[in-house]
Amino acid sequence: MTKRVETIGQAAVLAGLRDGMRISFHHHLRNGDYVLNRVMEAAASLGIKNLTVNASSLFDIHEPLIGHIRNRTVTGLEVNYMTGPVARAVSEGILDQPVIFRSHGGRAGDMDNGTLNVDIAFIAAPCADEMGNCSGKYGPSACGSLGYACSDAVHAKKVVVITDHLVPYPLQDASIQEGFVDYVVCIDRIGDASRIVSGTTRITRDPVGLKIARLAAQVIIHSGHLKDGFSFQTGAGGISLAVAKDVREAMIRGHIKGSFCMGGITEYLVRMMEEGLFSTILDVQCFDMGAVKSLRENPGHQEISASRYASPAMKSCAADHLDVVVLGATQIDLGFNVNVHTDSNGYIIGGSGGHCDTAAGAKMTVIVAPLIRARIPLIVENVLCRSTPGHTVDVLITQCGIAVNPNNPDLRERLLRAGLPVTSIEKLKETAEEMCGKPKLIRGEGRVVAEVLYRDGSRMDEIHMVQRC
Amino acid sequence: MTKRVETIGQAAVLAGLRDGMRISFHHHLRNGDYVLNRVMEAAASLGIKNLTVNASSLFDIHEPLIGHIRNRTVTGLEVNYMTGPVARAVSEGILDQPVIFRSHGGRAGDMDNGTLNVDIAFIAAPCADEMGNCSGKYGPSACGSLGYACSDAVHAKKVVVITDHLVPYPLQDASIQEGFVDYVVCIDRIGDASRIVSGTTRITRDPVGLKIARLAAQVIIHSGHLKDGFSFQTGAGGISLAVAKDVREAMIRGHIKGSFCMGGITEYLVRMMEEGLFSTILDVQCFDMGAVKSLRENPGHQEISASRYASPAMKSCAADHLDVVVLGATQIDLGFNVNVHTDSNGYIIGGSGGHCDTAAGAKMTVIVAPLIRARIPLIVENVLCRSTPGHTVDVLITQCGIAVNPNNPDLRERLLRAGLPVTSIEKLKETAEEMCGKPKLIRGEGRVVAEVLYRDGSRMDEIHMVQRC
Repeated sequence: MTKRVETIGQAAVLAGLRDGMRISFHHHLRNGDYVLNRVMEAAASLGIKNLTVNASSLFDIHEPLIGHIRNRTVTGLEVNYMTGPVARAVSEGILDQPVIFRSHGGRAGDMDNGTLNVDIAFIAAPCADEMGNCSGKYGPSACGSLGYACSDAVHAKKVVVITDHLVPYPLQDASIQEGFVDYVVCIDRIGDASRIVSGTTRITRDPVGLKIARLAAQVIIHSGHLKDGFSFQTGAGGISLAVAKDVREAMIRGHIKGSFCMGGITEYLVRMMEEGLFSTILDVQCFDMGAVKSLRENPGHQEISASRYASPAMKSCAADHLDVVVLGATQIDLGFNVNVHTDSNGYIIGGSGGHCDTAAGAKMTVIVAPLIRARIPLIVENVLCRSTPGHTVDVLITQCGIAVNPNNPDLRERLLRAGLPVTSIEKLKETAEEMCGKPKLIRGEGRVVAEVLYRDGSRMDEIHMVQRC
Repeated sequence: MTKRVETIGQAAVLAGLRDGMRISFHHHLRNGDYVLNRVMEAAASLGIKNLTVNASSLFDIHEPLIGHIRNRTVTGLEVNYMTGPVARAVSEGILDQPVIFRSHGGRAGDMDNGTLNVDIAFIAAPCADEMGNCSGKYGPSACGSLGYACSDAVHAKKVVVITDHLVPYPLQDASIQEGFVDYVVCIDRIGDASRIVSGTTRITRDPVGLKIARLAAQVIIHSGHLKDGFSFQTGAGGISLAVAKDVREAMIRGHIKGSFCMGGITEYLVRMMEEGLFSTILDVQCFDMGAVKSLRENPGHQEISASRYASPAMKSCAADHLDVVVLGATQIDLGFNVNVHTDSNGYIIGGSGGHCDTAAGAKMTVIVAPLIRARIPLIVENVLCRSTPGHTVDVLITQCGIAVNPNNPDLRERLLRAGLPVTSIEKLKETAEEMCGKPKLIRGEGRVVAEVLYRDGSRMDEIHMVQRC
């Protein structure tokens, strides 16, 4: 008794792949992922047309998707985040119908509540047994957590597990269990290990970044949230890690025992848990090999699904239990709305990921960003794309000062009392414009190339086609 | 933000408990369970009527249910197994409508496929956090695996977690996750620890039992299944443990590395894993404190849900991967059909549990039982109740010989070649009847008091009302 099938193409045929279906992928192999391209090649070879590809994220490596869009193997695209050539091609109008952007929590939630139905999920699995029990923790392409793939496994009509490391039944410590899996394919290599996790993440050395991080840590310290039981999410960028460093030192000084940290996990957060600053890591995605190793070895380091992370369709999720989240922005406007989907030219360069989910859930949402990037001001009158609604954002921190959302006067009061450089978002906008002038607002004038859904499924914004530049 | 509610009654009201609903319970606290009785008291106090109670199993401690049936708080009952006063009262006709018997796999499967819909699941949890993440591994009422409660949590419309050991959020290593839980109640004590697990299970010292066990081990050894990768399920009874002992010695002698053992787990199986005879234990239920401790500490000892154990509604389950299962019987008939629901008087004294699930899944199903119990022969022309269909049973082992199901001539050949005392089931029946006469067949003549569903939901048999004796 086995679910093994020789090739991806055979599995696709057995799973009933046909024109017009929605197929899904997770992005835990990030820019090292071979699986999406291999599956799309197989689909194209079978002559399948009009597929909708739902991928939790797309990276540079997924460039071949452009060819599959051109030959109409793929006519629909749904992502939580995308960057690289596919994002650029979408911005320039390669697809007839708009891309659907969801958040990480929204994607899981729409699967949980049945509004997003996947016909076949193709799950890249760093290790698996022949019945489909699988995990990201072991094997040559280990990526750690398979959190974003869990919803696909549970809800898709058919599930194909694709691995390069088959182990004897039963795989221990499976992230996805056999009961959800139809077919298992073992191929030579599911990914390029050197690009699966981003390598060692580093604290920024840029003085502007360090200044922002120092201010952010001060805001967290004086916000009233940094006390026993503190829960925290921050990203893997250089500024985020610098914030974590300063928060760590404050926790050590204050003998503070946090409860959990969450999100994309780095070695830095692992060290904080090992030092006893947090009892638990809730890990929906590993960002470096230190995190992968810790997930394997440390019982306090727990893998969670996207649903448990942030699904608004569940009875609760961990994001709702966050005290503080530190997030970035490509733009922020006077209403504290944040854009993480497009750059200032209107090109798609990202997506919400868990941005709007954690902003909605956390008691305090902190946006950190340089006031000016490449002579372009951060703060605008209206963001080109509303990724995260302003009412879920508490405070913006730049190197030139701190702006607190007027809907949180208590926080403003605390930060003023602490002697922090609190100003208004309008003042910060003026400061930037004094330095580099008011930029001409570029808003795509073409047809809609993407629709941005909020985590509850409602329509947040749309992104228009850009002029090729 | 919390899901905590002060009392069970308040949780029941908030969850919308009302007349005619189906409410569910798991049986991991076994004969030490306080929770079912406490919930039923609360329901009765609220004046609720016509509830259907779906409990994975019922024991002596659940005697108060009889009062709730008398006052019509409860008018329907669904179980996988029941023993004690409630079973007796049902046999004597206390309920107007038949009890529905399912198997452990069938109950999970009927929830998985939507034919069994639970309105409110009340989940006794030895530890939990205030958002409902919970586990059976820790706390004063630790019971180990919560495998049978997982389906209830995932599928019930409302889920109430009842604990006596509240821990800070987030509970690590949760068996059931917050996303499925609506309310959490913390009470003084959810169970009587001394009766939750059956204490130290012992290998039989009865010479008849030992002889059966020795023959069973010989059958396993010579069946061709005992080789590297061997997977095995046996029960916690004295004969089962004696079989495990002999299998263990054979594995050590033959340098055989098994893959997994499964089912109700005892310290004896834990020791076999620790000795390297099995790499993995798949644990749907712990039978003693040694198993509970191992589940907490040994990464190879894995908790599984009832769905993963044996649900026929999933794409595969672990029961389908068993090589050998050793099971008991109260009766077996000439067609190898097994009765584990009633005694020879027709009284309900058990139920399938995982009997028919593992019999259907395993490559070889071994029934071990004494040929005569209290002057009553084991083998009858037709079982009083067909719990497990004969075509899924391979071999019956008694102290007077071995009968192989004619549908497995290959096995018969192997055992004969090994010089084992193979005979026919008809011969064994004659032998017993020569010793204690042919018993008068007592078949309940009254109305139907229970319907027995097979694991796929089809109707297997019915149990009739007995004359009070």
